[in-house]
Amino acid sequence: MGVERENIICLGGSHGTHLAVKLARILNVDFDAIEVRNFPDGEIYVRIIPEVKRRTVIYVNSLALKPNQYLVETILTIETLKDLGAEKVYAVIPYMAYARQDSRFKPGEAISIEIVAKMLSNTEVDEIITVDMHLHRIEDPQKLFKVPFHNLTAMHEIAKYIRANYKLENPIVIGPDEEAEQWAKIVAGDLGLEYDVLEKERISGEEVIVKTRELNVQGRDIIVVDDIISTGGTVVETVKALRRLGAKRFLIACTHPLLVKNAYNRIVSLGVEDIIGTDTVLSPISKVSVAPVIAEYITSHIRRDI
Amino acid sequence: MGVERENIICLGGSHGTHLAVKLARILNVDFDAIEVRNFPDGEIYVRIIPEVKRRTVIYVNSLALKPNQYLVETILTIETLKDLGAEKVYAVIPYMAYARQDSRFKPGEAISIEIVAKMLSNTEVDEIITVDMHLHRIEDPQKLFKVPFHNLTAMHEIAKYIRANYKLENPIVIGPDEEAEQWAKIVAGDLGLEYDVLEKERISGEEVIVKTRELNVQGRDIIVVDDIISTGGTVVETVKALRRLGAKRFLIACTHPLLVKNAYNRIVSLGVEDIIGTDTVLSPISKVSVAPVIAEYITSHIRRDI
Amino acid sequence: MGVERENIICLGGSHGTHLAVKLARILNVDFDAIEVRNFPDGEIYVRIIPEVKRRTVIYVNSLALKPNQYLVETILTIETLKDLGAEKVYAVIPYMAYARQDSRFKPGEAISIEIVAKMLSNTEVDEIITVDMHLHRIEDPQKLFKVPFHNLTAMHEIAKYIRANYKLENPIVIGPDEEAEQWAKIVAGDLGLEYDVLEKERISGEEVIVKTRELNVQGRDIIVVDDIISTGGTVVETVKALRRLGAKRFLIACTHPLLVKNAYNRIVSLGVEDIIGTDTVLSPISKVSVAPVIAEYITSHIRRDI
Amino acid sequence: MGVERENIICLGGSHGTHLAVKLARILNVDFDAIEVRNFPDGEIYVRIIPEVKRRTVIYVNSLALKPNQYLVETILTIETLKDLGAEKVYAVIPYMAYARQDSRFKPGEAISIEIVAKMLSNTEVDEIITVDMHLHRIEDPQKLFKVPFHNLTAMHEIAKYIRANYKLENPIVIGPDEEAEQWAKIVAGDLGLEYDVLEKERISGEEVIVKTRELNVQGRDIIVVDDIISTGGTVVETVKALRRLGAKRFLIACTHPLLVKNAYNRIVSLGVEDIIGTDTVLSPISKVSVAPVIAEYITSHIRRDI
Repeated sequence: MGVERENIICLGGSHGTHLAVKLARILNVDFDAIEVRNFPDGEIYVRIIPEVKRRTVIYVNSLALKPNQYLVETILTIETLKDLGAEKVYAVIPYMAYARQDSRFKPGEAISIEIVAKMLSNTEVDEIITVDMHLHRIEDPQKLFKVPFHNLTAMHEIAKYIRANYKLENPIVIGPDEEAEQWAKIVAGDLGLEYDVLEKERISGEEVIVKTRELNVQGRDIIVVDDIISTGGTVVETVKALRRLGAKRFLIACTHPLLVKNAYNRIVSLGVEDIIGTDTVLSPISKVSVAPVIAEYITSHIRRDI
Repeated sequence: MGVERENIICLGGSHGTHLAVKLARILNVDFDAIEVRNFPDGEIYVRIIPEVKRRTVIYVNSLALKPNQYLVETILTIETLKDLGAEKVYAVIPYMAYARQDSRFKPGEAISIEIVAKMLSNTEVDEIITVDMHLHRIEDPQKLFKVPFHNLTAMHEIAKYIRANYKLENPIVIGPDEEAEQWAKIVAGDLGLEYDVLEKERISGEEVIVKTRELNVQGRDIIVVDDIISTGGTVVETVKALRRLGAKRFLIACTHPLLVKNAYNRIVSLGVEDIIGTDTVLSPISKVSVAPVIAEYITSHIRRDI
Repeated sequence: MGVERENIICLGGSHGTHLAVKLARILNVDFDAIEVRNFPDGEIYVRIIPEVKRRTVIYVNSLALKPNQYLVETILTIETLKDLGAEKVYAVIPYMAYARQDSRFKPGEAISIEIVAKMLSNTEVDEIITVDMHLHRIEDPQKLFKVPFHNLTAMHEIAKYIRANYKLENPIVIGPDEEAEQWAKIVAGDLGLEYDVLEKERISGEEVIVKTRELNVQGRDIIVVDDIISTGGTVVETVKALRRLGAKRFLIACTHPLLVKNAYNRIVSLGVEDIIGTDTVLSPISKVSVAPVIAEYITSHIRRDI
Repeated sequence: MGVERENIICLGGSHGTHLAVKLARILNVDFDAIEVRNFPDGEIYVRIIPEVKRRTVIYVNSLALKPNQYLVETILTIETLKDLGAEKVYAVIPYMAYARQDSRFKPGEAISIEIVAKMLSNTEVDEIITVDMHLHRIEDPQKLFKVPFHNLTAMHEIAKYIRANYKLENPIVIGPDEEAEQWAKIVAGDLGLEYDVLEKERISGEEVIVKTRELNVQGRDIIVVDDIISTGGTVVETVKALRRLGAKRFLIACTHPLLVKNAYNRIVSLGVEDIIGTDTVLSPISKVSVAPVIAEYITSHIRRDI
């Protein structure tokens, strides 16, 4: 037994409406937009027009590009939905901001993700769902959140898209560093390919070389897989290192294409075959949708559980 | 008995360092800056270098100009101060954002100030101190906050500054609307002047005139007093209406000079004598400091109470 | 006779590198990036690393999203290329800013496009090439520019993309207004479809209805075609009007997806099948590339002419 | 002989209205605002409402804070004023952007100020007037501009303000580097004080010390004088170096308070007595007006010359 289809509504925030529409279509439930705008002084105005009383709301908003603006918008919206009588609010946050500040690297630093998780947990939200959250020093993200929390992966969708759209020669999947091994492994598994990660070896006091851990990339095409492309620095270094090792063509894939500053220019300037990301972050390379992954989770867990 | 002077430290955030420095001087306590910057992706990095363990921290940050950025920065900082062992954290928020959205004016709207107050109250902060908070539909702001909350006024400092710097002829203090009566009254009281507010009278179906409630402004100089100057629209209308009624010269005063968009240009274009505000918001007209008011409160309540 | 392939180099600015790379591939000529960044005070820093002396430069930069920033960058770059000895500089400006302010609609207004055209013409540029420039009140754009100027169209590429990717039932191409007839006509011609435009009819003093000029859309799928999608207001009105007239599904297409503010959210909220634009403006819907159109023009005119 | 007072009008742009109003008062001529705003797509809309036909226009706009936006606005406005029939247009640009990029420090760099000067010179402007232009590698700025150009100094106004407002003990005026000697000299001369500049001395391969060229600052108060405060880095280093040399209190003065990023916080955190700048750039420290300097120039040169 679960929630009746008629009682569910998908709502999208400033950076989630595109996904809320797709989700509603797949789930065959209602969709509506939320009225959100900024006052001239920068404060956010939120208004929820559709009836949400006693309904189950799937609210989608991604915390990328303007993380503080969208974090405050998300909290204002969740609290207002509950204040208006929503039975349950499932917050789908496809990109969770602040996840990379998950430890005190230097004395006195804020461990930002703990504080942001507390902010979200202190709302009336019923569950938080995210995608490929970048937590490399925290084993169980559920410990961060005092509310039910679920971390999905977009990597199967990325693999599907690569299979359908690219013809590569003797390709190998590469994670730019040890932390990316988890992503490379999934994509390689789905595509039936080998994978490896890069590591740094200190040759002498000054000299460091970047190389693959095990496999030979000479003459092969490469699928670089990572969770986030931010400034593009990692991708640029990865492509350069692999070219030195004889790799031929490159397909760059990530879940979250933040592409800050001139990242996109930097990467296209490398002359790679293509760069792809998902729609957890709206960008010129958001070619893969995470809507099916989220929809599947909602169908199997939420519609059934309640 | 209160906190020992040596055990108090004033810290300033991105929009509070100027006030934290002044406060520390008046209180004769330590001051230090907080390291705050934005990562390229827009996330905030906060690091507290000075030792805060077992100390009483007066933390100052104003939520104007970039309200969401500074709200998140403030929460990250408060939580980190406590996490680092601060005994007490007094958050001085000279301008409280979102105060104007203090009611559901249309169905479905967020009552933003309730939610923001909850966000701040859910931190480990010990007390929140603000200045001339714009709450016209909420009688007791303490009810918004689950932590001790104190609302100071800058109007006595504004009156002092006006007395010291301007020579006006037969001046009268005017509040642009009924809500501003409370501010006009204080300034007029301190300066030994009359005050009045403007009100709108509907002459016919279409026609509305703006006039003073009681007093005649013909040939008199005007001190316009309000809490906030945002887009400047209210000031422009007020000056125009009073000029039609025969007023001569104008001094414009406010606590919070938000001056969004082209507000400053709009007001200087009116040809007024001067425009003044306080340093709750950093602006070209922040001529009056609220540091003495905050310092006096801290001396009399905090240093004594603890 | 023309320029030798080895002597041509494609360079991209902040909003043109993606196209410069594609152009260089199609033309089989060199590509390089330009170093562009902002100083902390907002000034632009431009540096051209590759050798350009006595070479023919195809420089690409689009004036959308940050029009003033990119206009100044473009002028700084063109002048520097010539100062460094470039033989010829062809400026490809896929989106020409300020084209819509092409007349003095009210007394005292700047006719901005005339001034911007003069700014660009006063550089040492040899030719300016743009795409689907929005000039509805100026017959011959060449009169605006004192240098050779060429206006290409992306509409054939859009038609090709639609043919390859969508299955529509009994579709009709619609331009949202009379000015869009030129674009609708090309797309309809290429796809072998009928086209029409919307017009407003005043029913009574207050009442206006929007209707097609000639054709019946009842039960048909619609391809909406326009040059620019800015705030999305026109698209929203068009879809609503056509739905009232019985239209079924919608594909929205444009050359320049500016998508300012919440335009993308507004349009996806309509529940249309898809929204597509070109890469004259980098956006989440830039699915069609204008590189082939520009490459063809360069091959046939520039490589031959010189 | 000169222009009649009635025929002159002062107009202010987005970053010049505050000065245009003051100028008009001093000159006893008409003032009016210009309607300037941004379309949602970022393009600038300029409209000039007052009659300018056959009049002499003093147009004020400063190119600081948003240099590219204000540069384009300035050009749009100048050209429109002339197009509307203004007899003469004197462009007062209190802060000239791009002046610091006045040489090719590395191969391939844009010499931006040459290009910006060309952009301004190619308008129909009759004369350009600026204040303390930062040109350290160009002897005669007139050579940059093809139109009459005049560079005023704010240093006498700064000296006047310091004399009237601060009591310093045995003060000395210090320029942070050799380039600032010109400014330190003027302020010191007006105040009847000694001046010196800082220089770097290499003690060993690694070690550099900053010291005064000649004078001893031990136990003395310091007036630091420079043309621009941008990120504040120079001021911070200067204060630290002078403190090591025994200096006591500090007054920081500049013409152009750009105060980018957290410069203001950095400087107030030093615990200096005060920081002052002029209104060539609107900032929280714009305490000195350059209006008298500009007015004097206009009275003596323009009203007489024409």
